[in-house]
Amino acid sequence: MAQQTRPARGMRDFLPEDVRRRDYVIGIVKDVYQRYGFEPLETPALENIETLTGKYGEEGSKLIFKVLRRGEHESSGETDLALRYDLTVPLARVVAEHRGKLPKFFKRYQIQPVWRADRPARGRFREFYQCDVDAIGSRSPVVEAEMLAAVSEVLQRLGFSDFTIQLNHRVLLTALLNAAGIDAALHATALVAIDKLDKIGRDGVRDDMVGRGVSSEAATTCLEAFESPDRFDRLVAQEEGGAEARQNVAQIMELVEATAAKGHVALTPRLARGLSYYTGAIMEVAVADLAGSLGGGGRYDGLIGMFCSEQIPACGFSLGLERILVVMGERGMFPEGIGASAADVMITQFEGEPIDEALVLARELRDAGLRVDVYPDADKLGKQFKYAAARGVTFVTVAGADEHARGEVTMKNMVTGEQSAVPRGEVVARLAEATGAASRTPHPASRHDP
Amino acid sequence: MAQQTRPARGMRDFLPEDVRRRDYVIGIVKDVYQRYGFEPLETPALENIETLTGKYGEEGSKLIFKVLRRGEHESSGETDLALRYDLTVPLARVVAEHRGKLPKFFKRYQIQPVWRADRPARGRFREFYQCDVDAIGSRSPVVEAEMLAAVSEVLQRLGFSDFTIQLNHRVLLTALLNAAGIDAALHATALVAIDKLDKIGRDGVRDDMVGRGVSSEAATTCLEAFESPDRFDRLVAQEEGGAEARQNVAQIMELVEATAAKGHVALTPRLARGLSYYTGAIMEVAVADLAGSLGGGGRYDGLIGMFCSEQIPACGFSLGLERILVVMGERGMFPEGIGASAADVMITQFEGEPIDEALVLARELRDAGLRVDVYPDADKLGKQFKYAAARGVTFVTVAGADEHARGEVTMKNMVTGEQSAVPRGEVVARLAEATGAASRTPHPASRHDP
Repeated sequence: MAQQTRPARGMRDFLPEDVRRRDYVIGIVKDVYQRYGFEPLETPALENIETLTGKYGEEGSKLIFKVLRRGEHESSGETDLALRYDLTVPLARVVAEHRGKLPKFFKRYQIQPVWRADRPARGRFREFYQCDVDAIGSRSPVVEAEMLAAVSEVLQRLGFSDFTIQLNHRVLLTALLNAAGIDAALHATALVAIDKLDKIGRDGVRDDMVGRGVSSEAATTCLEAFESPDRFDRLVAQEEGGAEARQNVAQIMELVEATAAKGHVALTPRLARGLSYYTGAIMEVAVADLAGSLGGGGRYDGLIGMFCSEQIPACGFSLGLERILVVMGERGMFPEGIGASAADVMITQFEGEPIDEALVLARELRDAGLRVDVYPDADKLGKQFKYAAARGVTFVTVAGADEHARGEVTMKNMVTGEQSAVPRGEVVARLAEATGAASRTPHPASRHDP
Repeated sequence: MAQQTRPARGMRDFLPEDVRRRDYVIGIVKDVYQRYGFEPLETPALENIETLTGKYGEEGSKLIFKVLRRGEHESSGETDLALRYDLTVPLARVVAEHRGKLPKFFKRYQIQPVWRADRPARGRFREFYQCDVDAIGSRSPVVEAEMLAAVSEVLQRLGFSDFTIQLNHRVLLTALLNAAGIDAALHATALVAIDKLDKIGRDGVRDDMVGRGVSSEAATTCLEAFESPDRFDRLVAQEEGGAEARQNVAQIMELVEATAAKGHVALTPRLARGLSYYTGAIMEVAVADLAGSLGGGGRYDGLIGMFCSEQIPACGFSLGLERILVVMGERGMFPEGIGASAADVMITQFEGEPIDEALVLARELRDAGLRVDVYPDADKLGKQFKYAAARGVTFVTVAGADEHARGEVTMKNMVTGEQSAVPRGEVVARLAEATGAASRTPHPASRHDP
């Protein structure tokens, strides 16, 4: 009974090469975030459906995958659980639930998949990873500066040098909209239009704003202010909170000079960010050849209050792993060899040869830190070499009856084609040296766990 | 509007300490499996519902979480997707789908969560991780020997020394059931009963077998054979495939002597394994103080054929991460300090002190490989020390106006309480030395990606 074997629509199987590339990026993200004092958090893929309800707006809610109740309730068509739609709402729930156990300032990173029933398109999937950092509990601009630094360092470590992190402040935007005479009730919808400025241009945004009920004059006032920093500053300075927000942004810009983000942050009055929950600084990463951003975030001092009685300040940033991988692939930014090789050494097998010998050698090489594959069947030698080459194995060893009698092993370098007979007692040291395993630490997982 | 903040029933939030312990174990599992030449694979959390249908038996099917269709179909109550129930069926689908891209022998590991709507109980969750290794494409006993070796090495690296891997063969069991005169139609149900021998004892199993339609005499024949290796051998030798299976097991036992599994594998005629898809060797890890196993697996040469026209041989083993974590926690097997510390160094902050200085020091320390937290607010020093202690931070630095004037930084060891003034230019080297960061490699993620 042959079956459909493709993954579900908009979802992907990650074959070994894909996983190794993803793990390379995720490893760097984790390492940098840990150096900045962020701690790991993981939440369940499934949340009670009420946890997600009303958090993502009307459009977002339509994209939530809902899980049918089970057992006797199955036929009712009712749902009680839903798949994680982002990492921010689960974080807010966790902070409210575990407040007693968490430090006063809780800095966490979270790298997990989310699911959205979006129409699949190039670079848009229904299961994709988010890499979030959030700092909970402080209103200090040090939080934003450190976050901008951490994100910059991640991008630099991955090999990006041409990125800009646009910085703005929600209160500045509110002040501008007020100064332009736009009614508070229209602010949210006006920001959605302004958020498209890079995509649809000035005229497009003005038409869109007017379509959303903003007067043509007010829309023009806003759009002109985005083109003149002086005019922008003058307009927002008169409004409530405007001066304070302007100072907050100035402080962040100043602190950033002392960090890895230096030279990468640009004050960008037109930056709006679509989401409604931001209350302070907002930020977004732009790179030249990518429409859309590599990530974004901002301060949201109200969201956690939806889950508990306390108002707890928070600031977060989400890096788009899938987009980073797309750009890195297109630009050829992965270090040579990442993803390609399944093993450092393959041990061949002959008909009649004692297999134990192969297993003993495999064990010694593995103890020395090498990745070792043992060819399982006693095939023709040519077939075994071909297989090793196809899998990107660097060295192949041959130890037939002849070699055994001489106390030697034949070592073949699959890259150079070079072949040499090596005394059995020296094989491990020679291969460890040649593959660089000798200089690798044995327990990479525990690197940060002394 | 305060909301329910607990995770969904049977699911868990993993706070930083939990994640670090889980990552410690997963890191070792990955490292060992990579050394054995296994490659990483990841599949989507959601599968088309037909992919899972009919694979897990009647009881299993009830535990599958099903996802409601979306949009206009939502009200129909129909489902089109389901959450991953294990890692074996997705592997079989992947092998069928990507055959052209995969090597002839495909050895993969996969460490991902699965979801089952089981009744939650101690150590039983509705979302839990499986750590699977499978080797596809070869019938050689080298496959089983290497798998037993890899699993043994994982357990040894984690600190287990008292484990036994029980080994048996499905064809031996079939031969025994035939020899005892049990009809082939009753074999599957008889094996389910035999699988409970350790739990309900000999009399319990006999009653259970009789309840399932096996004659009392036949049940007794089987149970007696389990207690006498000679009788077992004699009975199975007469039956079809019996001698061959006995030889296969003997070969595996012999090969294992050359590997890390030496001394840990025990031929166990009563081992049955519940799942119906096994066709050859079967294995299960037992430790003294745990009812149930830490993992199990076996050869299944028929499953992949359910997804493609070809019969492809396969052998796999699944380690139960949650159980391993439970046992390690109860026995205190985690290395000291795993999970506890959020950062190596915390930099304090004073009112009036230039924050830039703190950020510059943080950057230098991070470049040296340290995990550094910057206290965000200019609180009282005592409060900052208390916070650092609570988060398991090892060193705290203080650089107020006095220190700044002297070109020094005060370094406090939070473990010993020792406090010393250090010239600013020596702080980084001193802290890197003291925390062991100096000897750590900078890019742990790329360790196996030369």
